[in-house]
Amino acid sequence: MHPNTPDARIDHAREARCGFPEVVFCEGKTAAQVARIVEEVLTRTDVVLATRVNAEQAAAVFATCPDAVHDDVPRLVWVDRRAVPPSEGLVVVASGGTSDIPVAEEAARTAELMGCRVHRLFDVGVAGVHRLLENTELLRSARVVIAVAGMEGALPSVVGGLVDVPVVAVPTSIGYGANLGGIAALLTMLNSCAAGIGVVNIDNGFGAGVLAARINRPRWAAEITAAGAADLEP
Amino acid sequence: MHPNTPDARIDHAREARCGFPEVVFCEGKTAAQVARIVEEVLTRTDVVLATRVNAEQAAAVFATCPDAVHDDVPRLVWVDRRAVPPSEGLVVVASGGTSDIPVAEEAARTAELMGCRVHRLFDVGVAGVHRLLENTELLRSARVVIAVAGMEGALPSVVGGLVDVPVVAVPTSIGYGANLGGIAALLTMLNSCAAGIGVVNIDNGFGAGVLAARINRPRWAAEITAAGAADLEP
Amino acid sequence: MHPNTPDARIDHAREARCGFPEVVFCEGKTAAQVARIVEEVLTRTDVVLATRVNAEQAAAVFATCPDAVHDDVPRLVWVDRRAVPPSEGLVVVASGGTSDIPVAEEAARTAELMGCRVHRLFDVGVAGVHRLLENTELLRSARVVIAVAGMEGALPSVVGGLVDVPVVAVPTSIGYGANLGGIAALLTMLNSCAAGIGVVNIDNGFGAGVLAARINRPRWAAEITAAGAADLEP
Amino acid sequence: MHPNTPDARIDHAREARCGFPEVVFCEGKTAAQVARIVEEVLTRTDVVLATRVNAEQAAAVFATCPDAVHDDVPRLVWVDRRAVPPSEGLVVVASGGTSDIPVAEEAARTAELMGCRVHRLFDVGVAGVHRLLENTELLRSARVVIAVAGMEGALPSVVGGLVDVPVVAVPTSIGYGANLGGIAALLTMLNSCAAGIGVVNIDNGFGAGVLAARINRPRWAAEITAAGAADLEP
Amino acid sequence: MHPNTPDARIDHAREARCGFPEVVFCEGKTAAQVARIVEEVLTRTDVVLATRVNAEQAAAVFATCPDAVHDDVPRLVWVDRRAVPPSEGLVVVASGGTSDIPVAEEAARTAELMGCRVHRLFDVGVAGVHRLLENTELLRSARVVIAVAGMEGALPSVVGGLVDVPVVAVPTSIGYGANLGGIAALLTMLNSCAAGIGVVNIDNGFGAGVLAARINRPRWAAEITAAGAADLEP
Amino acid sequence: MHPNTPDARIDHAREARCGFPEVVFCEGKTAAQVARIVEEVLTRTDVVLATRVNAEQAAAVFATCPDAVHDDVPRLVWVDRRAVPPSEGLVVVASGGTSDIPVAEEAARTAELMGCRVHRLFDVGVAGVHRLLENTELLRSARVVIAVAGMEGALPSVVGGLVDVPVVAVPTSIGYGANLGGIAALLTMLNSCAAGIGVVNIDNGFGAGVLAARINRPRWAAEITAAGAADLEP
Amino acid sequence: MHPNTPDARIDHAREARCGFPEVVFCEGKTAAQVARIVEEVLTRTDVVLATRVNAEQAAAVFATCPDAVHDDVPRLVWVDRRAVPPSEGLVVVASGGTSDIPVAEEAARTAELMGCRVHRLFDVGVAGVHRLLENTELLRSARVVIAVAGMEGALPSVVGGLVDVPVVAVPTSIGYGANLGGIAALLTMLNSCAAGIGVVNIDNGFGAGVLAARINRPRWAAEITAAGAADLEP
Amino acid sequence: MHPNTPDARIDHAREARCGFPEVVFCEGKTAAQVARIVEEVLTRTDVVLATRVNAEQAAAVFATCPDAVHDDVPRLVWVDRRAVPPSEGLVVVASGGTSDIPVAEEAARTAELMGCRVHRLFDVGVAGVHRLLENTELLRSARVVIAVAGMEGALPSVVGGLVDVPVVAVPTSIGYGANLGGIAALLTMLNSCAAGIGVVNIDNGFGAGVLAARINRPRWAAEITAAGAADLEP
Repeated sequence: MHPNTPDARIDHAREARCGFPEVVFCEGKTAAQVARIVEEVLTRTDVVLATRVNAEQAAAVFATCPDAVHDDVPRLVWVDRRAVPPSEGLVVVASGGTSDIPVAEEAARTAELMGCRVHRLFDVGVAGVHRLLENTELLRSARVVIAVAGMEGALPSVVGGLVDVPVVAVPTSIGYGANLGGIAALLTMLNSCAAGIGVVNIDNGFGAGVLAARINRPRWAAEITAAGAADLEP
Repeated sequence: MHPNTPDARIDHAREARCGFPEVVFCEGKTAAQVARIVEEVLTRTDVVLATRVNAEQAAAVFATCPDAVHDDVPRLVWVDRRAVPPSEGLVVVASGGTSDIPVAEEAARTAELMGCRVHRLFDVGVAGVHRLLENTELLRSARVVIAVAGMEGALPSVVGGLVDVPVVAVPTSIGYGANLGGIAALLTMLNSCAAGIGVVNIDNGFGAGVLAARINRPRWAAEITAAGAADLEP
Repeated sequence: MHPNTPDARIDHAREARCGFPEVVFCEGKTAAQVARIVEEVLTRTDVVLATRVNAEQAAAVFATCPDAVHDDVPRLVWVDRRAVPPSEGLVVVASGGTSDIPVAEEAARTAELMGCRVHRLFDVGVAGVHRLLENTELLRSARVVIAVAGMEGALPSVVGGLVDVPVVAVPTSIGYGANLGGIAALLTMLNSCAAGIGVVNIDNGFGAGVLAARINRPRWAAEITAAGAADLEP
Repeated sequence: MHPNTPDARIDHAREARCGFPEVVFCEGKTAAQVARIVEEVLTRTDVVLATRVNAEQAAAVFATCPDAVHDDVPRLVWVDRRAVPPSEGLVVVASGGTSDIPVAEEAARTAELMGCRVHRLFDVGVAGVHRLLENTELLRSARVVIAVAGMEGALPSVVGGLVDVPVVAVPTSIGYGANLGGIAALLTMLNSCAAGIGVVNIDNGFGAGVLAARINRPRWAAEITAAGAADLEP
Repeated sequence: MHPNTPDARIDHAREARCGFPEVVFCEGKTAAQVARIVEEVLTRTDVVLATRVNAEQAAAVFATCPDAVHDDVPRLVWVDRRAVPPSEGLVVVASGGTSDIPVAEEAARTAELMGCRVHRLFDVGVAGVHRLLENTELLRSARVVIAVAGMEGALPSVVGGLVDVPVVAVPTSIGYGANLGGIAALLTMLNSCAAGIGVVNIDNGFGAGVLAARINRPRWAAEITAAGAADLEP
Repeated sequence: MHPNTPDARIDHAREARCGFPEVVFCEGKTAAQVARIVEEVLTRTDVVLATRVNAEQAAAVFATCPDAVHDDVPRLVWVDRRAVPPSEGLVVVASGGTSDIPVAEEAARTAELMGCRVHRLFDVGVAGVHRLLENTELLRSARVVIAVAGMEGALPSVVGGLVDVPVVAVPTSIGYGANLGGIAALLTMLNSCAAGIGVVNIDNGFGAGVLAARINRPRWAAEITAAGAADLEP
Repeated sequence: MHPNTPDARIDHAREARCGFPEVVFCEGKTAAQVARIVEEVLTRTDVVLATRVNAEQAAAVFATCPDAVHDDVPRLVWVDRRAVPPSEGLVVVASGGTSDIPVAEEAARTAELMGCRVHRLFDVGVAGVHRLLENTELLRSARVVIAVAGMEGALPSVVGGLVDVPVVAVPTSIGYGANLGGIAALLTMLNSCAAGIGVVNIDNGFGAGVLAARINRPRWAAEITAAGAADLEP
Repeated sequence: MHPNTPDARIDHAREARCGFPEVVFCEGKTAAQVARIVEEVLTRTDVVLATRVNAEQAAAVFATCPDAVHDDVPRLVWVDRRAVPPSEGLVVVASGGTSDIPVAEEAARTAELMGCRVHRLFDVGVAGVHRLLENTELLRSARVVIAVAGMEGALPSVVGGLVDVPVVAVPTSIGYGANLGGIAALLTMLNSCAAGIGVVNIDNGFGAGVLAARINRPRWAAEITAAGAADLEP
């Protein structure tokens, strides 16, 4: 006998959603589940974002939502049927090494979907600090900078010394040995002697994008997420 | 023979200054050193903030700067000769237990000195969650919320579920045993399932105040700190 | 030559049984071993519970025990041939995110098999605290509440501030990065500023169910487990 | 100038109160503050408990409350003007070494003040396991057992194998080196292979007493703490 | 071009041998390598022990050494062509749960191959302490006791309180969550309040067997390992 | 009112005794308490050892036991009125740096009081490995070697490669920074690639002495400690 | 729709390159990507080194660079079309166990490609310290020694006591249990009481080779890496 | 009776000397002991360095060695009666914040006493990266750079990207909270993506100075330390 666990229905739904109902965290879900949730969300809002999507899940979404977009670098799938005017303020996403790009791109795309104008400034790690300094003017033109780095995670400190706007620091798990799965970079960022830095969890590009969007564009971001939250809650 | 260590002069100066030259980190300095630095800063700017000040250091500052203000709860001394109009946006500083007040007050005062209008909402810990919920409207009227908590550090998560503006999370070292000197609260905040939260180091009320001010009032904050930095650099 | 390791027979038996002989911890056992143990237990008692069961093991049990029940969400298989009257006291099992349901369900089912009346209250995480507060009356009607949460693990703190009965806190390993495999949620629960909370190991839904049942219904729980223990001991 | 920090008044009040308003956590408070809070509480309830009290604080309380009681082993001061009939159920407080007695006594006295009949069974560490076994009947007569241990913290495991009632496990910070300030004992208790054990924070005798009282005597405990909470909340 | 790394020959040899040349640590070696090394050792000594052997490696050894013995519980293969009289002193190997048997058996077999008389006393975990106590006389008849335990690892403490001979404590990695891969059990054993306990690394049954044999039978053990060491060194 | 805590009498007695009643662990006791306990023990046995003794405690003992001996390097006080013939087997206590001597001496003296013939071989750290090698013959003449080391704690590994008898490894807390209070040395010893090593807790010279004595001289050691235990137990 | 992530081109390039453009870190790259990068580098310099190469990646490189060399022990592929005269100074690479050889060989080959004369001295672990001492003259003839060790990681300490040249210490992740993935060996090396030791990350043979080469041969090493860096930068 | 601990004489001597007999580690020694050791060393060599010296110890040395030099910033005392020609190669000591100066100065002075020409470049932290970049030419003129930093410890990474000579990285314990007593900075340095960096223990300025001197000036350094070692060994 296979009983119907009373609340198992929830298992088909919004894992680790955490307040952003239009965001689907796909790790641990079947392709069919992901596709059904995306469809369901779109009956209520004009925008949906799915994170940590694998190829099979993406294909399932395409089958029912031909206007979905899939970027396999940050492992995102999204549908955006709104016409959102770009924000006035600029979000610059700076990252250290090539391996950090998936997380950086997750942050950048999340911010874009929340209405932000975004500039990507990848591969500006501190071991070749001139590459970062050449972009000082760009960094200073931002309303908020997201700094993504693995290994020793020193990028936010150097960025924080160049700008006077908020810096969102994202440690990544890139590294090995004493990196401890990103803990080393996380500690670096928390101990930064540059002020004005807020840190998010390891590899949490999505969270960084949301925080930056709320800093840059509070109204739009609020409307989007509130709408989604209202719609999806039973 | 007592040699004059070539760079020892720097020891008389700006410990852990880190980009905010008008801020004097007083731990490890003599009272005379603190007083001299405050005086020196005031020859160049109209505002100075000293953090982690003890009674003896405060007295030394008073001797030369009668218009200095000392608040021994957050252990701050400051002089502010500017006429800064209050910011339009509001910074709400929420904190959990009474023991968290010194850190919360350090954050609040720092934000005020950087031009922010600040509302203190202390003693709203999650174990009596109604106290927090009764202030939902206030929290939602903020441009940015600073949430300060020790022990289990759950306050930012609950606040993050109530507002759609950025939340600056400050873990404190209040607690014992498995608290690990604030690491428990820090981990809680980094793992929050509410999005839009940026975390600073344990007990870093000053850093939280700077980050909130930059979110709330980028121009003023920038001018203040840039001015200070330009002036104090040799 | 393959010698017969003198005590290897024990390997076919009750791994990590730890005082609950009617409970079979299935991780690391073959399907045949699990089926044989379940059969053996049922020659002596009327109830058996197998935890952390995979599909192959469940199928093997069905082959010999057609009245076995399998729920693959909490990965449990059980046979219950008793007629246990439901307890007067109520156990409420509250959980944070959808991903926490397998552990929450393991706790709930364990408590039910030990004679408890159980109410499941899933998906009431602290980032949307109104969902929890809407159920305050339900929580206050319980004799004991089990609170299951991953990520930042703040649920038991908020629950502990709403009720005056014992709270059994279960951290889960759901999360990533600074979550440290559930250590973050574990520390949160140990440091809760709400009193009256007892914490079990990460993902230990079974242990939480036993503890709640002993709080709610000491007699029944004792009889059940003592019977099992007496029967199975060689 | 010494400003009056707007919320500093809270500093004179209920540090780390966390839901038990009649409990005064004294670490970090002046003797005068402790005495005033105790007085204030007694204008509203008939019972008050102060924890982690030093000699000076105790003397200050005596000056205004001649009926206060001070036990310097668990560092508690209390006033109890109620006539609470002893509970039917029994709480047994077992502890390992002599050095664990302060924490064990804090748990025992807290449970007594919450209406419990308590039996102390100190100095029954696992390295001389016969001392514990000689008390098996006593342990089995309890409604709940509190097991307090430092060093390797194995006591709750052995107790858990002897009884079928809930066990509240309290690690202490007694030990050195690889004890890590009590973390070793804490891990031991969380990993116990005996089921039915709930763990509290290191040295948290007070929390263990509250949990045991809620298990043993939910009604009385609830009334007491609810009354206190209602009275003290502004 | 595939160069012949100058020292790569060593890769075909004695990985992690560490002073016991007749012992072959098989993790990371090919089946052919293991078989060749066993053969080579046997041209020089009458005894060889291979640890952490998988099925393929065992089969390869059988092909050339028909008198090899394979026990897949402790993952050992050995050849013993000596006629070693059993030691006078007794080694008792006690273990907690069924899952600890592979490590316990590795310890027992190692001690036997080093000339010891060994008694296995498995499944005597502390959560059912009477099973251990029933064997007190046996434990007291030993020259040395090896105590193997995972989970909370409390067995050596209880054994240490029953005997006055040396106890070799072996933590295993059995457990989950706050067990931290055996660290919890390791800390328990290091902090034991029973004296006379020496601890080895997690899952190091081999090391425990060697230590016990040297305690029980120094001469034989020395001759065996010295002979091996002398022979195998190039 | 000062109540007489029912079990507080135990506080005047045997803190952290742990099975060796003739050993008095003095940390946290008053001088009067130590003196009284030593006197009490001597009414029943002919030998007593007090560890971690300060000057005031030692003076108090001298006042009543003029034949007491105090060595302030290992912080031991002892009285020995027996005539114990020296053991045949030899215990060699080797240590790394001068700072490790207090712990090494605690181990050596403990072994002597348990009947062992002891040779001290101090200041033979691995950074000057020739000093150790010059004593190879001495080391090989031992029945058991105690190796004490702080900093990187490599001494037991090198010793273990020179001898074929059991090695008792004692990490000390000497060091700074990444030493982590002795954890670094502890891990080194647990991971030694030399077999035949048993590790005790950081700074636990007493435990090492007991273990070595039980290896070297089981009968005597047992009689001594059993006698003491029987006498002191109420 | 599959968008072309603006910066995804960088993903085809120099992951974790970190200042050595002629070095290709291959983990996480496709075989085609590795082959293309190697080709591209060789259009600009005469030397390229790829690290952490798997068999498929190596084959892809051979297809386009028939003069590539692959050593699968250290998992390196390189092409060297220069005629570099061997350095005057000698680099000795000493390692502990056979399992450490891959890391040791990575260090040795890296140093060779940077112009160093290298002597490999493998399998000289401290548990058989005579093997190391027999090579004292060789070690003393070096300009710099690289000491590679896993398990307890004591080799650099012993080497550091034998030579007066810089020692580069490389911990490896070889070990189990309390080894913590190489952290134990890392801590050992950082706490070495021998002076003159510089430590690199766990398993970082490449980094050790670069450091040794810069010590031994600053000019050549600089020219090589500067050339590469200049060429590859867009 | 106060026995004369056989080896206690060593306690009067060279604590934590570790191969540099002319260096006296003063922590834990009396002023008289330090003075006597310095005198004794000077009867055999022309140079002595005492580290971690307090004021009382320094005064005691002055009393017998009027030509001693005391610098209380790095807490060093030294006597140097040699006429050492300055080295050709340059050691640059760069440091982050003012609080790092004591450790940086310990490194600088140690290198000078070992014959190096040293340039101090203090207060060039990464949060104001232009200060460092303005000194690029100076850094590139060095034979070796010592980079000292607390807080996030990012300085060596940035320096490592600017130079092609060896970098000796020294983490300091300056910081708070998630700094973990310098562990954060240590991890940062070990994970640096710049190659050519060797790391020493937290606050180990002395070790960094020795390593830099051996890199810069192997012959002189060797002679000095060998001489000292030969002389002082009994």
